[in-house]
Amino acid sequence: MARLIEITDAQDPAVDDFRDLTTADRRPDRPGGRGLVIGEGRLVVERLLASPYPIRGLLGERKRINTLEPLLRDLDVPAYIVDPETLAKIVGFHLNRGVLAVADRAPEPDPVELIRSSRKLAVLEGVVDHENLGAMFRNAAGLGLDGVLLGRGCSDPLYRRSIRVSMGHVLRVPFARLPNWPGDLEVLGSHGFRVAALAPRPDAVPVGRADLATGKVAVLMGSEGPGLSEEALRVVDLTVGIPMSREVDSLNVAASAAIVFHAMREEES
Amino acid sequence: MARLIEITDAQDPAVDDFRDLTTADRRPDRPGGRGLVIGEGRLVVERLLASPYPIRGLLGERKRINTLEPLLRDLDVPAYIVDPETLAKIVGFHLNRGVLAVADRAPEPDPVELIRSSRKLAVLEGVVDHENLGAMFRNAAGLGLDGVLLGRGCSDPLYRRSIRVSMGHVLRVPFARLPNWPGDLEVLGSHGFRVAALAPRPDAVPVGRADLATGKVAVLMGSEGPGLSEEALRVVDLTVGIPMSREVDSLNVAASAAIVFHAMREEES
Repeated sequence: MARLIEITDAQDPAVDDFRDLTTADRRPDRPGGRGLVIGEGRLVVERLLASPYPIRGLLGERKRINTLEPLLRDLDVPAYIVDPETLAKIVGFHLNRGVLAVADRAPEPDPVELIRSSRKLAVLEGVVDHENLGAMFRNAAGLGLDGVLLGRGCSDPLYRRSIRVSMGHVLRVPFARLPNWPGDLEVLGSHGFRVAALAPRPDAVPVGRADLATGKVAVLMGSEGPGLSEEALRVVDLTVGIPMSREVDSLNVAASAAIVFHAMREEES
Repeated sequence: MARLIEITDAQDPAVDDFRDLTTADRRPDRPGGRGLVIGEGRLVVERLLASPYPIRGLLGERKRINTLEPLLRDLDVPAYIVDPETLAKIVGFHLNRGVLAVADRAPEPDPVELIRSSRKLAVLEGVVDHENLGAMFRNAAGLGLDGVLLGRGCSDPLYRRSIRVSMGHVLRVPFARLPNWPGDLEVLGSHGFRVAALAPRPDAVPVGRADLATGKVAVLMGSEGPGLSEEALRVVDLTVGIPMSREVDSLNVAASAAIVFHAMREEES
């Protein structure tokens, strides 16, 4: 059972993992300069507790910690109990979700292993915005993708804001980084994947007609502004597009992802 | 041509329309207590200038106003020129988009007129979140809906944050309020619309199999948490659902809207 420990002094070093969350994503003192994995709110904390990330501790109001009790039984970590004012002083702002958990990062899956064990994948290039990245993971989880491959120039999916916008689903959908870009896209082909780029090109196949539901498919998506690089577009098997109204430049990248991931589902029942 | 007027004193009452934007949505001094229509950034300002809303004026750095010049030629309103510091003092925060326009509200279309002239509509119930509302309008514009009907409990689509998240598309997609809820849904039926509710019910038809592209279709959507009311669900023609993975509760309502609006498009070419 997690060890319940009351904290009344916001300066107590025991709760340093939770201190000043607005800067928690930059941690020069830790491996790679990256922050811990932080879950905020009951729903996300539950997903973090169920994830492979090694839990370091929890912090929250007593009633919030209590509702998590069944999940804390087999966990040998501290659960710090605070009142709302102390909580606000520790994290640096008023937190109306009342409970947090932090975990260490874990080794990311080997991309080839992830490819080998998957049928439907998203591959991202240059997706920098943490909210869009989180929203795409939520869509990937909801619409049944097996994983996400991060190509060149993507942000860290485990940033606090990404985790929050993903509703914690970034903790459940496996992701791996592709070190050689765009060369590693060929690994997908050698494992039987069709690689479809989503791009607003005149020759793009409408997404509803590209039969993305059949077989192993990886969809390559870029960011809203610049889109995909020419070198990545050169190595894909086909280009798909979302038919849009005239005078509208683009959809939000997470909205586009929802449409494409839905088209990739194998059975609709 | 708009009248270019330099402003050096942030307290100048001439720029009161632009003052303290973080509270600009509540204007007890104006009709209905509602704020002016505010566009931020070049793209949204352009869409506001092209909209039916009567422009009251612009405010921005000289170079930003200059790039809008062709659109200002036939406009008899003041365009206030400020430096970035004065701009920040007037609006109350640093604005990195450097240009704004404000307009009066305009009479909303009659809902029956909007229904009569449309083939594809979204009908919203209880969508309170301004960002989700804005994102849905962006999706509606991009995927070619003819308009949006606002049922009970929806927020004001012309809130500053909605306009911004919609990228200004809320200024282009006609919307109207339905005064009698859910009774007014029957007006859709009497004009030949099939009304499809999006709801995660066991008997829901998968959205890809509901043939939403054919004929006049209105899709009814609620908010993420509570969903649609029972009384609204009772009067629809069918219920559609987005096939989801187990263990995932729901998609974001704007992501769901993207999937459904895409399925409503008449031709995919």
